[in-house]
Amino acid sequence: MKPKLTLVGAGPGDGELITLKGIRALQKADVVLYDDLANDSLLDFAPQHALKTYVGKRAGKASFTQEEINGLIVRMAQEHGHVVRLKGGDSYVFGRGYEEYEHVRQYGIPCDVVPGVSSCIAVPASQGIPVTSRGVSESFWVITGTTRHGELSDDLRLAVQSKATVVVLMGVNKLAEICALYCQAGRGHVPMAVIQNGTRINEQSVVGQVWKMPHLVAEHGVGAPAVLVIGEVVALHPAYLAECLRSISVDSLQYSVYGG
Amino acid sequence: MKPKLTLVGAGPGDGELITLKGIRALQKADVVLYDDLANDSLLDFAPQHALKTYVGKRAGKASFTQEEINGLIVRMAQEHGHVVRLKGGDSYVFGRGYEEYEHVRQYGIPCDVVPGVSSCIAVPASQGIPVTSRGVSESFWVITGTTRHGELSDDLRLAVQSKATVVVLMGVNKLAEICALYCQAGRGHVPMAVIQNGTRINEQSVVGQVWKMPHLVAEHGVGAPAVLVIGEVVALHPAYLAECLRSISVDSLQYSVYGG
Repeated sequence: MKPKLTLVGAGPGDGELITLKGIRALQKADVVLYDDLANDSLLDFAPQHALKTYVGKRAGKASFTQEEINGLIVRMAQEHGHVVRLKGGDSYVFGRGYEEYEHVRQYGIPCDVVPGVSSCIAVPASQGIPVTSRGVSESFWVITGTTRHGELSDDLRLAVQSKATVVVLMGVNKLAEICALYCQAGRGHVPMAVIQNGTRINEQSVVGQVWKMPHLVAEHGVGAPAVLVIGEVVALHPAYLAECLRSISVDSLQYSVYGG
Repeated sequence: MKPKLTLVGAGPGDGELITLKGIRALQKADVVLYDDLANDSLLDFAPQHALKTYVGKRAGKASFTQEEINGLIVRMAQEHGHVVRLKGGDSYVFGRGYEEYEHVRQYGIPCDVVPGVSSCIAVPASQGIPVTSRGVSESFWVITGTTRHGELSDDLRLAVQSKATVVVLMGVNKLAEICALYCQAGRGHVPMAVIQNGTRINEQSVVGQVWKMPHLVAEHGVGAPAVLVIGEVVALHPAYLAECLRSISVDSLQYSVYGG
């Protein structure tokens, strides 16, 4: 029995968006430690004898701390052999995957990394929004909405000035703050999308201009887990124009009733 | 016979980094139009009867213009049915995938998009470099090195000021210019990696500080196709410290011979 860790990116939610390499790792697993962002159907690729342990967060409550997960990987690898750590999206995109990799390597346990389809690209695509498009966007910037200290990332303050497509992961709880930053920078008119449960059956989204997004999200009942996309590429979304027209007519109506 | 297009991200080069969904699309293809960034072994997933046509660039020469490819997809779909357009990485990351999607939709041909593992994340990972790591990087910014007009993207001028991990795709021909931008901004000391043929058998890379990278790349013979990674996360690469120490001792030596 040889202890080993394979970090596998499970993809953004759709169970078919795992890689062939990820499936092959699962097929050789003795233990699978999985998050809730990973699709449960993926566990079927693991052998029946494999231990399958959920180590994610449900209803915002973590079953295990990061330190406990790190320790669990080492213990499971030493006791059972090949541990597959199945994480939603890609393990190195805000997944704390590198911390697990680094911890495990200290014990002399070999570690492989199988990259995954990241929600930062695939979730916008699922809504018909390309993160880049010739003539519209020459770059995209992926930022966490949840830093270590619970504050907005300083990177976001610079991002509001850029022409990049800005993608914020784990940022729905900071939505009002993020939109306020854009408005303060005079960029409240920029197109924005909020996409919940992207690539899953229960995917839902809302598109509109940044200044109006906190209102639209409340109106449509869109919440975490969600991906925020901000930039001109969002105007390519099939519903964007209609939403802008609706906003104009509703706002004009409100103005004529209350303001005029 | 129903005309249809599926844009499939083939992943960064390793033939096992295609998704299950991508394989299933290939298995139902009547025509496969592929680039050279896609691994040739993926063509074996398509049925024997399927037409397989190469539409990429070899030795820098494009076999087809983008307009010709757009036209070809429509004609092939109308004549043969299901066209799978297989592109390296993800179709929406500088792949001109959206242009193809948009063109084909104008003909009333239904179009699906299967996202892929993007080289912007997977190629650094293949070298042990996470694009994000808690306490080191809260964001990553992916920028094309080759804009429509052949100039450096303006986004890069802002990126050199940011703490984001900066990933430049198709930028190896602009390496000297990019490094000069960092040096001008007083950031020539930032860690950088240049990774050629990432995730393939012939992958090779070089790491070092930005100011020295044009020299290192020439010394090691690393060239296109390559991914540039710039930011503190590159210091996590196992060879980074050794390269810095080597630079110091070689530079000191040169100084003592030529300068002192």
